[in-house]
Amino acid sequence: MVRKVAFAVACLLLQLPLLAVAQAQSPAVAAVVEELVAANRILAAKGILPGYGHVSARHPENSSRYLISRSLAPELVTADDIVELDLDSVPVSSSAPRVYLERFIHGEIYKLRPDVNAVVHNHTPTVISFGIGSTPLRPVFHQAAFFLDGIPIWDYRDFGTADGALVDTPERGAALARALADRPVVLMRNHGVAVVGSTLPMVVARSITLELNAEIQSQALARGDEIVYLEQDAESPGSTFDRAWDLWLRQLEAD
Amino acid sequence: MVRKVAFAVACLLLQLPLLAVAQAQSPAVAAVVEELVAANRILAAKGILPGYGHVSARHPENSSRYLISRSLAPELVTADDIVELDLDSVPVSSSAPRVYLERFIHGEIYKLRPDVNAVVHNHTPTVISFGIGSTPLRPVFHQAAFFLDGIPIWDYRDFGTADGALVDTPERGAALARALADRPVVLMRNHGVAVVGSTLPMVVARSITLELNAEIQSQALARGDEIVYLEQDAESPGSTFDRAWDLWLRQLEAD
Amino acid sequence: MVRKVAFAVACLLLQLPLLAVAQAQSPAVAAVVEELVAANRILAAKGILPGYGHVSARHPENSSRYLISRSLAPELVTADDIVELDLDSVPVSSSAPRVYLERFIHGEIYKLRPDVNAVVHNHTPTVISFGIGSTPLRPVFHQAAFFLDGIPIWDYRDFGTADGALVDTPERGAALARALADRPVVLMRNHGVAVVGSTLPMVVARSITLELNAEIQSQALARGDEIVYLEQDAESPGSTFDRAWDLWLRQLEAD
Amino acid sequence: MVRKVAFAVACLLLQLPLLAVAQAQSPAVAAVVEELVAANRILAAKGILPGYGHVSARHPENSSRYLISRSLAPELVTADDIVELDLDSVPVSSSAPRVYLERFIHGEIYKLRPDVNAVVHNHTPTVISFGIGSTPLRPVFHQAAFFLDGIPIWDYRDFGTADGALVDTPERGAALARALADRPVVLMRNHGVAVVGSTLPMVVARSITLELNAEIQSQALARGDEIVYLEQDAESPGSTFDRAWDLWLRQLEAD
Repeated sequence: MVRKVAFAVACLLLQLPLLAVAQAQSPAVAAVVEELVAANRILAAKGILPGYGHVSARHPENSSRYLISRSLAPELVTADDIVELDLDSVPVSSSAPRVYLERFIHGEIYKLRPDVNAVVHNHTPTVISFGIGSTPLRPVFHQAAFFLDGIPIWDYRDFGTADGALVDTPERGAALARALADRPVVLMRNHGVAVVGSTLPMVVARSITLELNAEIQSQALARGDEIVYLEQDAESPGSTFDRAWDLWLRQLEAD
Repeated sequence: MVRKVAFAVACLLLQLPLLAVAQAQSPAVAAVVEELVAANRILAAKGILPGYGHVSARHPENSSRYLISRSLAPELVTADDIVELDLDSVPVSSSAPRVYLERFIHGEIYKLRPDVNAVVHNHTPTVISFGIGSTPLRPVFHQAAFFLDGIPIWDYRDFGTADGALVDTPERGAALARALADRPVVLMRNHGVAVVGSTLPMVVARSITLELNAEIQSQALARGDEIVYLEQDAESPGSTFDRAWDLWLRQLEAD
Repeated sequence: MVRKVAFAVACLLLQLPLLAVAQAQSPAVAAVVEELVAANRILAAKGILPGYGHVSARHPENSSRYLISRSLAPELVTADDIVELDLDSVPVSSSAPRVYLERFIHGEIYKLRPDVNAVVHNHTPTVISFGIGSTPLRPVFHQAAFFLDGIPIWDYRDFGTADGALVDTPERGAALARALADRPVVLMRNHGVAVVGSTLPMVVARSITLELNAEIQSQALARGDEIVYLEQDAESPGSTFDRAWDLWLRQLEAD
Repeated sequence: MVRKVAFAVACLLLQLPLLAVAQAQSPAVAAVVEELVAANRILAAKGILPGYGHVSARHPENSSRYLISRSLAPELVTADDIVELDLDSVPVSSSAPRVYLERFIHGEIYKLRPDVNAVVHNHTPTVISFGIGSTPLRPVFHQAAFFLDGIPIWDYRDFGTADGALVDTPERGAALARALADRPVVLMRNHGVAVVGSTLPMVVARSITLELNAEIQSQALARGDEIVYLEQDAESPGSTFDRAWDLWLRQLEAD
């Protein structure tokens, strides 16, 4: 306790942000923080989070909390920027720096979905184009089997149009989470997408795969093709996204 | 005055261009010049000003003047290249270097629009495609709410076609500014676009958002989709483009 | 033999993977391994193998074996990662590291096609889009003459849909090889493509050309064009892909 | 003469290619060679000549000769690779290294067009797509005014289809030049394009502009738009491609 106060005083004296996730936390938390920083940087490098958007992870030791960067472009996030929030998206520390306006996307999904440990919110052009159009975004290749049950679209217009399309209140976050229901992805009308997973590598791979799927589907439809969508009755026997995660980590090192 | 003459003589002796915006100006001007250089480089890095096009800012201490680079690719602009012009787009210094042929876009807009402090003129392929086609460029996602009132198209053919599509006379600049009226954006038939804002970060963010919106809208239409356009009755509660501006500045440093 | 045992013991002591292709092999094998590493890296750099997909080469001294990387992103492959497999896709060394799940694509094609010495399996968005759509992928430019006889599509649904679209069994690999028959390319429904050639430079050039052809054809069809497909009655007088291969090698060095 | 023989002997001893354009030539030739190397590298960097394609310049002191690289990817071309050919595309030096198979494009155009001093042959996907389709490539923006008179398409099928689509004989080159006639651009069915100009900077800028125009026109048509094509009755008052050329040169230095 004395140590924490000293840390806070030092921060104030040095005009550093007083972070909710102190450096002295458990190895489990430190590991998730490190993975969360990597997820931010990988998704920035892949063009999924180019200045806007965010990724979070459930706290590994307290399932009613989650970890997310302070309001910052994902490309710039470091461990020092990670803040701890409760599931109402209120920072645990009263002196935490400002977090993203749309943090409720994360908190409200963690509330309704105990199986979810990681959430990405992004707005790439290709994915947004499916949130404004009349074509359902459907799996067209083997890696996209995870959304065979379809992708719902949450519509901000249910709340009227006076306040725009952002998910910037707890009520909107809760409505989005209900629209997501038990699916891995929910599109947001005129805005973007939320992708969920049980781990950070899974949600990163799913976000990248969703983008690829949207590109492939768009290209075939632009030619005027009839599409044979992916069919699969059972879960695929395994996933290879660990291989990709390793690559993405090494690409970050090479930058 | 003696100092300025000495500076001019030194420039002549050293064969440097004699710049209208001297190094010894006020901190307010120096700050805008610095921001203008950053805007040039950010828009070049984002592909909005790839060798062609330009960005300007109104003079912070004299609203009947504006600042813009001498005729130079935006990627190469430094503080030494910034020239001061009056609103007729005549350089304040008689020995100023050559400025862009289409500088009248800027001057004439500043004349008619006291609320405007920054102007971008660009011609990215995606945006041009809306200046040649029959589909109106309309907001499809939340960041694009700023042009909910629509984008007019100025048509050079009003001046006949003998002299081409460029805005290379005061008369054409004035006609373009009248077509813009009170909007944030005006398309230019078979040419490009002019985007305006109250600050440089705003006009940079708007230029990038316009490009994204054009991409998203094109992609959905190419699939043959019906589009649900953005609806919003009131101004969005705030803007997050400061976060993006910070990122873009840091990306310049990393180059 | 003693030497190999010593090498294995050293590997175990040093916790290195025990590789099937030892360092002490013939110059012919070393040359193919070097070329195979380059092929991995070139195809990664060109976006054909971005984290997923693989390339292999037939063993130059034993036509019933082939060489392929252990399960690793192509961008990261080095000579030490190359494994030797028999045509049933079983590693020659019982202590070989894990190889790609879909290695059967390679082994079963080498079995049926004695003229083939190199195989690429990839899933770029543009090529996949032809494996989900109704437009046949057909040659539209001179470099694409190699598939004038057409590209068959192998359909995983022949095996039912319970296990997904991957070629992860010998039976599926054999069915794919039969669908390929005597052609240079076979598309895989909802998945990707396999490209074959008599050398690694040829199969790399073919993979890149196939991607370009798919882009060109898609773009013309998206405009609504009628297409004049390539016509050619005889083999082209020669190939210039050696020039490209040299370039790609130098680009790797420059990275 | 003695000096040239000594140079040739030294080349042979050192196993260097015996170049037709010796180091000891006039400043005018050296300047064109330098500009030609820059043109090669700029067009490679811009994706117009990515491993394939070529650019040439007429000899500045002998209008019945032209300069072009030996058979080499444009990205790698240096002054030492430039070869001098007569207008039958025969190297002036009997010991010159091998030149591009399709050099006749250049020689035959220089024969018929005394106003032309620089030629580019390229095959970017977007441009090729107009050489396979039914939509005429027409100017849609101000920089593209140079081809307001339309772009003819030369069709290799006039020579039968047995030998493919390449311009690899003097007869085919002459037919292509006749198809070009007095225009700045000729498309080649199922193959690519030839662009001509009075200087290297002009032909480089035209090649890049043609690519942009093709992208813009394709994008509008893919949306299903009606297009308002560029109209202009007189030559535009000037060109700004010198500004772009300066930028491109500096970008090469920064690489």
